[in-house]
Amino acid sequence: MSKITKQKKIGLVPGFKATGIVSGIKPSGAKDLTLIVSDTSAIAAGVFTKNRVQAPSVIYNKRRLARSETFKAVIINSGNANACTGPQGMEDCRVICGTLAKELGIKASETFIASTGIIGVPLPTPKITAAIPGLTNSLSDKGWSQAAQGIMTTDLVSKMAEVRYKEGKKEIVLAGIAKGSGMIHPNMATMLGFVFTNANIDKASLKKALTLATDASFNSITVDGECSTNDCVLALANGLARNSKINGKGASFKSFVAALTDLCQILAQKIVRDGEGATKFVSIVVKSARSLKEARKAGMRIANSNLVKTALFGEDPNWGRIVCAVGDSGVSLNSEKVSVAIEGQALAQAGVPVPFNKKKVDKLMKKKEIQIEVDLGVGTETAKVWTCDFSYEYVKINAEYTT
Amino acid sequence: MSKITKQKKIGLVPGFKATGIVSGIKPSGAKDLTLIVSDTSAIAAGVFTKNRVQAPSVIYNKRRLARSETFKAVIINSGNANACTGPQGMEDCRVICGTLAKELGIKASETFIASTGIIGVPLPTPKITAAIPGLTNSLSDKGWSQAAQGIMTTDLVSKMAEVRYKEGKKEIVLAGIAKGSGMIHPNMATMLGFVFTNANIDKASLKKALTLATDASFNSITVDGECSTNDCVLALANGLARNSKINGKGASFKSFVAALTDLCQILAQKIVRDGEGATKFVSIVVKSARSLKEARKAGMRIANSNLVKTALFGEDPNWGRIVCAVGDSGVSLNSEKVSVAIEGQALAQAGVPVPFNKKKVDKLMKKKEIQIEVDLGVGTETAKVWTCDFSYEYVKINAEYTT
Repeated sequence: MSKITKQKKIGLVPGFKATGIVSGIKPSGAKDLTLIVSDTSAIAAGVFTKNRVQAPSVIYNKRRLARSETFKAVIINSGNANACTGPQGMEDCRVICGTLAKELGIKASETFIASTGIIGVPLPTPKITAAIPGLTNSLSDKGWSQAAQGIMTTDLVSKMAEVRYKEGKKEIVLAGIAKGSGMIHPNMATMLGFVFTNANIDKASLKKALTLATDASFNSITVDGECSTNDCVLALANGLARNSKINGKGASFKSFVAALTDLCQILAQKIVRDGEGATKFVSIVVKSARSLKEARKAGMRIANSNLVKTALFGEDPNWGRIVCAVGDSGVSLNSEKVSVAIEGQALAQAGVPVPFNKKKVDKLMKKKEIQIEVDLGVGTETAKVWTCDFSYEYVKINAEYTT
Repeated sequence: MSKITKQKKIGLVPGFKATGIVSGIKPSGAKDLTLIVSDTSAIAAGVFTKNRVQAPSVIYNKRRLARSETFKAVIINSGNANACTGPQGMEDCRVICGTLAKELGIKASETFIASTGIIGVPLPTPKITAAIPGLTNSLSDKGWSQAAQGIMTTDLVSKMAEVRYKEGKKEIVLAGIAKGSGMIHPNMATMLGFVFTNANIDKASLKKALTLATDASFNSITVDGECSTNDCVLALANGLARNSKINGKGASFKSFVAALTDLCQILAQKIVRDGEGATKFVSIVVKSARSLKEARKAGMRIANSNLVKTALFGEDPNWGRIVCAVGDSGVSLNSEKVSVAIEGQALAQAGVPVPFNKKKVDKLMKKKEIQIEVDLGVGTETAKVWTCDFSYEYVKINAEYTT
């Protein structure tokens, strides 16, 4: 495949416009309403929270994906998650999407909706519907920064990225915005991701590609092990690149998955770097697993271990906690072959400690980016996951917020 | 059944002697070697860590249970977990049990061994074997406090309890010691529990009773969601009560399970109260679950949620985090029927918030003991689990220890 170029700002995404404005949901007066529109009908795919308590917007989008063939708009509000709001919550989704569709001159069935923010408080729908004319008027092909800002809750920085590559003579552009920084401020939860591309691809292949990319990115990060009621990743593809249609097989599908994975990994890593109270960015590579699924499971168990995360905060090369977390993950391993290395320094091999130079390792542990490598000694699969350390600040952020 | 009397000290346990001494493993010079001996042959049962990385002592005890019919001694050291120590670790178990058996004039096959403390450092076996004559000489039917002290690592208090009840005219005594306070100080891990009874019971029934009691106690608590390489609960029954033999059925079995459960719950709750950095003792009752297993699973997911635990530390009645954790547990629930109450005050009912008096709830949240009740709305089963809150102190304890 052609080289993938990546950048942290979004340029022009053929056929898509974006915006983000203030509708008055947030007491702070910050941006809280985002809209992305496709000029032409786009196909779509989504992955959603596995939490059994799901926000109406999640249920709404799942239904839309099951019933509609094409889509033109995604509206997202921040400041209120519209979760645990009873039957009124679904009604609010319908009213907002209906109002938006009328304003844009499209069908309500062509719209998606997402919400993030406080749980258990009815959505201030009149504020949102009143803001819709101003929202649609401000749409611009250069509105991506505003769009990324409009979906922030406790995020310290807005998150967007773009990747481009050539499919034959056609340029495929993929752009995405995301939010999340821990399932933080009590009720200011949620990981959201939205991806827009001009690729010409069939619906089933887009879904397959999004699942693969999400598993290797948004599902391979953790800040605090929490999974919200509103988590949602949506992808829209409008086909304007006019490449020969990508189907689930062959080189063109592989290229698309690689580019989409790159995009989602950039966004996912931004979420980890913005993790609540994080002082270190931690990559965990699990090798020699029996399957990719087991490699990820072991990696996520390490990434979610409070003991490992507090040791990283304390800059302690505590391989015992890592081995213990791996053992507790339930994946196949050979405890007489397990090895652990941090920043390339072996700490345990064949299940027993390796003597190391304490001064050297203490210096490695002070780095802001730390890579942990674990070898399970039972197979050939490798996975990589990302997390952050666990500081006083995490407890402070999450204890001091008052409902 | 007759009334169960409970107390936090251990009196006489017919046929058992105990002791705890200093062998020199701990740099602090605190007690680090415990021995409990049965004058007569006792039957035994055990439950062990599900961690795939298991300390040699765990493997040793499992083999003993599979191969020996009766037992007479349990030796436990603290200060060193003898985990991740390679083949030498198992050899150390054999040497210590062999030396102990010789000293006591019993068979090595009649001994159990357990270890807790630092991981990845060879056990100082010569110190232990040299201390064995002094250890056996100090055995006493009043040695339970010393025994409970000898198994402590980062525990702030020693943990023991006793329950008694009448089976016909015979008095059944059950006594236990335990340790644990989080899978704390990096490598100073582990939950250990040891139960001794004069009950006359068959082996299969003791195993069944111990599993039931452990599920409702040691497996229903969490401090930080970690499961160590050394976790182990052993029960010995010497039959000296001369009650008609308890088999797996009928009223006498029910009485025994109830008493054993009471004993294990007292010990388990002591571990939670001693949780690292804990400022609150939290009971979580999950009702209307589809099964007991699902009720416990939901309860443990809430109990392990960093967001719930930091909210409790912050004295915030954050029911949204509780609902979110329950939803993430994967158990069956009806999100339109879920309800949450804290200290008897309803916060959410039928999946939506209940207005409450903020002043009243703020006062409830300041209590040192908090009960959370969650109704899943799908069945008839109830389970109770226990945890503590999550404070700055937890991060401090676990970040500042240096390997």
